[in-house]
Amino acid sequence: MAALVLHLLLSLFLATIANVEPHSHGIHNQIHLLRPQSGAGGSPVPGLSCQSWRLGVETHNIIGWATVPQECEGYVGHYMLGQQYRKDSKAVADEAIHFAESLKLAKDGKDIWVFDVDETTLSNLPYYAQHGFGVEPYNAKVFDEWVIQAKAVVLPESLRLYRKLLSLGIKPVFLTGRTEDKRNVTTTNLKNAGYHTLEMLILNRGSNYSGKTATEYKSNERRNLEMKGFRIVGNSGDQWSDLLGTNVGNRTFKLPDPMYYIS
Amino acid sequence: MAALVLHLLLSLFLATIANVEPHSHGIHNQIHLLRPQSGAGGSPVPGLSCQSWRLGVETHNIIGWATVPQECEGYVGHYMLGQQYRKDSKAVADEAIHFAESLKLAKDGKDIWVFDVDETTLSNLPYYAQHGFGVEPYNAKVFDEWVIQAKAVVLPESLRLYRKLLSLGIKPVFLTGRTEDKRNVTTTNLKNAGYHTLEMLILNRGSNYSGKTATEYKSNERRNLEMKGFRIVGNSGDQWSDLLGTNVGNRTFKLPDPMYYIS
Repeated sequence: MAALVLHLLLSLFLATIANVEPHSHGIHNQIHLLRPQSGAGGSPVPGLSCQSWRLGVETHNIIGWATVPQECEGYVGHYMLGQQYRKDSKAVADEAIHFAESLKLAKDGKDIWVFDVDETTLSNLPYYAQHGFGVEPYNAKVFDEWVIQAKAVVLPESLRLYRKLLSLGIKPVFLTGRTEDKRNVTTTNLKNAGYHTLEMLILNRGSNYSGKTATEYKSNERRNLEMKGFRIVGNSGDQWSDLLGTNVGNRTFKLPDPMYYIS
Repeated sequence: MAALVLHLLLSLFLATIANVEPHSHGIHNQIHLLRPQSGAGGSPVPGLSCQSWRLGVETHNIIGWATVPQECEGYVGHYMLGQQYRKDSKAVADEAIHFAESLKLAKDGKDIWVFDVDETTLSNLPYYAQHGFGVEPYNAKVFDEWVIQAKAVVLPESLRLYRKLLSLGIKPVFLTGRTEDKRNVTTTNLKNAGYHTLEMLILNRGSNYSGKTATEYKSNERRNLEMKGFRIVGNSGDQWSDLLGTNVGNRTFKLPDPMYYIS
């Protein structure tokens, strides 16, 4: 039953993302029945507070975790598919746009904004909805099979920020932990999702720049960009490993992600 | 009416904090009537999502703000006085204790844990409950009058962490933006709240160490501690200016605070 409700919510979510009206067999009128369960908000969840767990994850208090706690699968699923994830993402984009518009820019093509890919510009929610919303241990092989289909959906709020940055003359740079062999599928997926200006897409080449952790790899790549004369005015990511380390940029923007952790 | 409900919640909160049973004229049975309004959890708040605003604040996306948005006064009040703030604080303490217990310690008296004071070890909630939960602009004079009364209450979850650290042989260090002239009242207040071992209490001396921002001041003081041979194994604060900058320690722990921002 819970799985069915989540499946219906996912359908609604995808329909919304694709700007397609939900099929008109009453789902619209049932939205209130399908709204996130009360535990996804502020009501008590017995034992562990999944809401406190999520806050701990988002504030980098809880780190190094491999999977979402089993008892929070429903909570995380309802959060991701319900309104709150979209609202939280919107608040991040609003703040980033507010900041970008306040900048005095040199207009010399050297102002850049670093975007992560997965769960930042693209969403793998259709995949995670089929795999327990982070409760199942990460399976590189199965996830790769999903990635090469290039079917990840857009995060609409990040696309809005991306378009605003382009209009302001700030160059978006995509910096992802995806490996170099995924360049074509990643390019295809980003373009299909609406990110048409892909001048700079940096993937993990497994070189010295890669480091031991995502934090090291991304710090090295950002340092490399700054050594080339670029100024990182903003930096958006769903993982703290996108936003910590060195050369992080003038402002960082943490997008919500209670589904997985990358160090 | 809203003010009355908040006042009743505050009474309950203080009673809980002081480990005193609420007066037995039925309040116990009314707890469900006094529970936080649904907007304090996941239900939609018209216009601005106060929940998204709070997440933005806690993740350092929304910075440099002077006051809580007017429309979020009720939300923040209910959050602070309701169960969720306590649960969120508990999750931080649980994680910090879990981390502290995992450490291999040299037992040479050089392992320290840095604690901020206001909204980290002590709570000024009785003050803020009388001043709009952060909606009113900060008034240094009125707040000082509160501080010198030494009536700030304990944050029970932080006291639990503090006691655990002492038992593990990790020295707590209090590092606060409060100025040196508040040493006596701060000592009194911390001791009354249960923090009896106060070997190191660092207040702002307005010297070169002070820097321009709290981030600079605290980074300088932490560097000073490390130059004296101390190892900062953990660092707890309610503001990102407690946890960012340099010499931040092996792990940082962000306590919730949607009431004010210090850069």
